[in-house]
Amino acid sequence: MTEPHAPLVPVLAVVGIGLIGGSFAAGLRRVGQVGTVLGVGRNPASLQRARELGLIDEVVTHEQAAARADVILLATPVGAMPGALKALAPVLRPGTLITDAGSTKVDVARLAQTLLGDKYLQFIPGHPIAGSEMTGPEAADPMLYHGRKVVLTPFEGTPGQDLHRLIRVWEACGGRVQLMDPAAHDRALASVSHVPHFLAAAYMAQVARSSDADARLNLAGTGFRDFTRIAAGSAEVWRDIFLSNREAVLHELDDFMSALQGLRATLEGDTDPAGLESQLEQAALARRFWGGRSGRT
Amino acid sequence: MTEPHAPLVPVLAVVGIGLIGGSFAAGLRRVGQVGTVLGVGRNPASLQRARELGLIDEVVTHEQAAARADVILLATPVGAMPGALKALAPVLRPGTLITDAGSTKVDVARLAQTLLGDKYLQFIPGHPIAGSEMTGPEAADPMLYHGRKVVLTPFEGTPGQDLHRLIRVWEACGGRVQLMDPAAHDRALASVSHVPHFLAAAYMAQVARSSDADARLNLAGTGFRDFTRIAAGSAEVWRDIFLSNREAVLHELDDFMSALQGLRATLEGDTDPAGLESQLEQAALARRFWGGRSGRT
Repeated sequence: MTEPHAPLVPVLAVVGIGLIGGSFAAGLRRVGQVGTVLGVGRNPASLQRARELGLIDEVVTHEQAAARADVILLATPVGAMPGALKALAPVLRPGTLITDAGSTKVDVARLAQTLLGDKYLQFIPGHPIAGSEMTGPEAADPMLYHGRKVVLTPFEGTPGQDLHRLIRVWEACGGRVQLMDPAAHDRALASVSHVPHFLAAAYMAQVARSSDADARLNLAGTGFRDFTRIAAGSAEVWRDIFLSNREAVLHELDDFMSALQGLRATLEGDTDPAGLESQLEQAALARRFWGGRSGRT
Repeated sequence: MTEPHAPLVPVLAVVGIGLIGGSFAAGLRRVGQVGTVLGVGRNPASLQRARELGLIDEVVTHEQAAARADVILLATPVGAMPGALKALAPVLRPGTLITDAGSTKVDVARLAQTLLGDKYLQFIPGHPIAGSEMTGPEAADPMLYHGRKVVLTPFEGTPGQDLHRLIRVWEACGGRVQLMDPAAHDRALASVSHVPHFLAAAYMAQVARSSDADARLNLAGTGFRDFTRIAAGSAEVWRDIFLSNREAVLHELDDFMSALQGLRATLEGDTDPAGLESQLEQAALARRFWGGRSGRT
């Protein structure tokens, strides 16, 4: 029987101690819901830094994490997950719950089924909708998930008590959990997260490649700053996201390009100022409505 | 002779008392460099609000402003400037300096030459690179121009003493003045200001029109928030900006669309993860470099 003050997660293992994994550990630590935090990773300097910052207590191997942890969070780019799952699978204890923080869910669910074999129901795919263009353990913030949506995409056979436990863990970090079908998650995220990043990156590269880039960037203001902020994110992370959600991203990109061509045609025609204003007004109203509803400006 | 403590602008007239005009008046007031502020505008409620907020001292007509002011700032959308210039022209005193805060400069320079006739050298086109998605006199902020670039595009014949006076006025508001050719200004702004707004608006409209818009917007996070913030701006203001800088905006849009097609092809090909990462990395480095140089993140 659990003692009254035992933490929700006696032993947590985090694979990939950067912004996402470090903030998860720090968030649980902040509310006293984690005992020991084990850190697993590829980069010794980063692990060392995470120890110095108090984000993790010990550096361990995948195998040690699989044998000791009650909950394992995979907070690596999606591209690094197959390696992690292969290493964890053979020694994974029954009762250990694995989850992840990857930005796509169909592919992660498939990976878990393929690589964990008959242990795949110990894996509950997840995606906290929070982040920053900052990376690394220094960027970890115990409040990162506070008030943020966290999507979980359980399998049909996921035991209810495991799901319930993971929900409590995320809620302890301040997250607001929402259950979704993995494909619906991926389509929605392609639209509101992956395409904006794709556009910001294409735009930033186009400006930077121009012959008078310096003169342009010298006049860039707050609008430019906000619009391009996401383009500063990790190229490795975003490469993995785009590739792993390729179909949905391409579909949304094409839909966006049609919309852009339409707005461009209205401007080029130059005979319909009211039509141009009306299209801009629809966008402005939609954005203000979202800002009001989400409590963000 | 001017008294030692006389303000730089004994009588200022601001045509259009919103965020831009109100902040200019408030900025000068803050450092004691303005005497009386006259307000001119189309919207009685807005003028009344500006008086209550202490942004202006009196509400006057264009004709009264032309007869009394030492400096006149046109802070209306570019589309409203012809009307303002026509009203000011017949009664404009010699020695009164007019400037504007419009986002395009070739067309404003042309308007001044056409509508002010032989008085056009009293007009020095200008563009403070500052703003916000907020509008109206309530949004006025005496620090809005602090540390911001202010572009002036004087005519060849602009008297040096007038230019010098206007530079001192903007510097009193905290602005950092830069002189430019109007066409070069318009090309640079098309790239770093107008195209981002166009893309954000087209994107926001595309998302809002989708059949599952609610589910999507429910998962939108901080990246979406930043990327779309400019889309909330005034549709009327941006319609005028796009139409008045139409050629440069279309040219930049086409250049962006080529870049986007290139990045999309790399993703669709799906055979070149390193190439995709390298393109994303170029964008990320360019954005981080700009952020570091501009002191903005």
